[in-house]
Amino acid sequence: MTAYSIAIHGGAGTIQRKDLTKEKEAIYHRGLNDAIKTGASILEKGGSATDAVEIAVAKLEDNPIFNAGKGSVFNAEGKHEMDASIMDGVTLEAGAVTQVIGIRNPIELARLVMDKSDHVFLSGEGAIRFAESMECKMEDEAYFYDELRYQQWIEIKDSGKFQLDHSVKDKKFGTVGAVACDLQGNIAAATSTGGMTNKRFGRIGDSPMIGCGNYANNKTCAVSCTGSGEYFIRGVVAYDVSCLMEYKSMSLEDACNEVIHRRLKEIGGDGGLIAVDAGGNIALTFNTEGMYRASQKGNELPEIKIYKN
Amino acid sequence: MTAYSIAIHGGAGTIQRKDLTKEKEAIYHRGLNDAIKTGASILEKGGSATDAVEIAVAKLEDNPIFNAGKGSVFNAEGKHEMDASIMDGVTLEAGAVTQVIGIRNPIELARLVMDKSDHVFLSGEGAIRFAESMECKMEDEAYFYDELRYQQWIEIKDSGKFQLDHSVKDKKFGTVGAVACDLQGNIAAATSTGGMTNKRFGRIGDSPMIGCGNYANNKTCAVSCTGSGEYFIRGVVAYDVSCLMEYKSMSLEDACNEVIHRRLKEIGGDGGLIAVDAGGNIALTFNTEGMYRASQKGNELPEIKIYKN
Repeated sequence: MTAYSIAIHGGAGTIQRKDLTKEKEAIYHRGLNDAIKTGASILEKGGSATDAVEIAVAKLEDNPIFNAGKGSVFNAEGKHEMDASIMDGVTLEAGAVTQVIGIRNPIELARLVMDKSDHVFLSGEGAIRFAESMECKMEDEAYFYDELRYQQWIEIKDSGKFQLDHSVKDKKFGTVGAVACDLQGNIAAATSTGGMTNKRFGRIGDSPMIGCGNYANNKTCAVSCTGSGEYFIRGVVAYDVSCLMEYKSMSLEDACNEVIHRRLKEIGGDGGLIAVDAGGNIALTFNTEGMYRASQKGNELPEIKIYKN
Repeated sequence: MTAYSIAIHGGAGTIQRKDLTKEKEAIYHRGLNDAIKTGASILEKGGSATDAVEIAVAKLEDNPIFNAGKGSVFNAEGKHEMDASIMDGVTLEAGAVTQVIGIRNPIELARLVMDKSDHVFLSGEGAIRFAESMECKMEDEAYFYDELRYQQWIEIKDSGKFQLDHSVKDKKFGTVGAVACDLQGNIAAATSTGGMTNKRFGRIGDSPMIGCGNYANNKTCAVSCTGSGEYFIRGVVAYDVSCLMEYKSMSLEDACNEVIHRRLKEIGGDGGLIAVDAGGNIALTFNTEGMYRASQKGNELPEIKIYKN
């Protein structure tokens, strides 16, 4: 029996030490710590990687400091449109939702799509009708309201611009995700996002796209991505890591480095990913200034980090 | 300068000789012939692979016998919800749309997303607003009405079932697509679908998903898929062909066989794909009884086929 392992992220981008107060840092540390502890407690009791990543991501979705679930940003219509996906490395089954509004935990809905529907990927009002038929927890607009998010939107609302919640000092970030290897050596990945501030045209990013922002396969790895979504789609990033391991026999770490530091860079993409393999190895790889991240192996203390060094 | 090459498909499934009248066969042959000629005429004049696949797919969308564009099936609400995607193997740029209603040629909209937006993947009403801003050609419901499609829907409308337009004798089919290699040795892929009859919950299949139903990269191949979409998503099928070529140095044909006859089968998926590489090789690979398909190399006569043998 291997020790379990788990990693989570809360987005990547130009997060620099000079831009975060100690108080803010502590808030992110606490949020990451709460989520990884919640996931690890499932694994410790012999629970499945799939349950652990779902629950860790739901915890991040419930925390308003991350751009997913409750903390989702405002789109161009002033709404919170969310995406999520989950994949089980044992069965290669997957579930994903995009453009959902009013769902408390999009990751739970993605899980229900995987477990209870004939489909992999549901969208918009149709996905919400499926959520209702599954008695998913719904919330009204007030639940998703956040003063900072609202100000971010008001600032750029009439400009036609959109932003990934990247690159501005104290502002919050793009995506959350979790990957885990359980005591049986099974792996899984989950990803969730509140999208881009002032997002228009029903834009779908990489987060709900199996193979792009999220992928899991016991033979290789479980991956959750965060960054400039369009580039992650064009690079089919999550599955690319898996292919380098399967077809070129690369280690998890080498494959993640090759994809994030070379292949994604070549097409102009920035961001990062978290990954585990069935041996319990963990990779936390990004080509940006920082990535909100935490990892834990078995009963060791979690490592929680924000900046590059 | 290589000779150009082009291949197109109009869906795969249990299409058997005994189920098609000679008249029906002739209609499909004519439809495939018209589309491949249209694409080939672009390539012959030195046009780009991207233009050729877009125009060939638009021709298939305009033909009511194929399930895409005008011939799209009815979803559970009695509407025609369409998906399309396109990718340029030179730049690795891509465009895709899902859940669009009333767009005459979804593939043209996917091309506009690639060329004129900051995004890769747009959905639903947002995608339609983008189409309006681009002055895309729109059509009312009457344009998409077809008596056979309507009867197909009425038959299963209240059953809660959906169907891929597979497996029933005279009935029409799932997806259309084109891949091409132009005189410069550049390659591209395009895919379009009218979805599943009685489709619910805003289901998204593999057709608009870059890496799953459609992919192009000059270094490896251009691929357009058709079949049981959920399995093509879980297998990240189109990019898998590319990875086997890039990372295992497989030929186009070997990579397509490995993916369609072994890897896709292992997870229970059925369907097929068309593919070209930058050397102008063509593969038409499927694990079903038939696939509506045509291929042409340079000024040779097109080969048009429906059944396995």
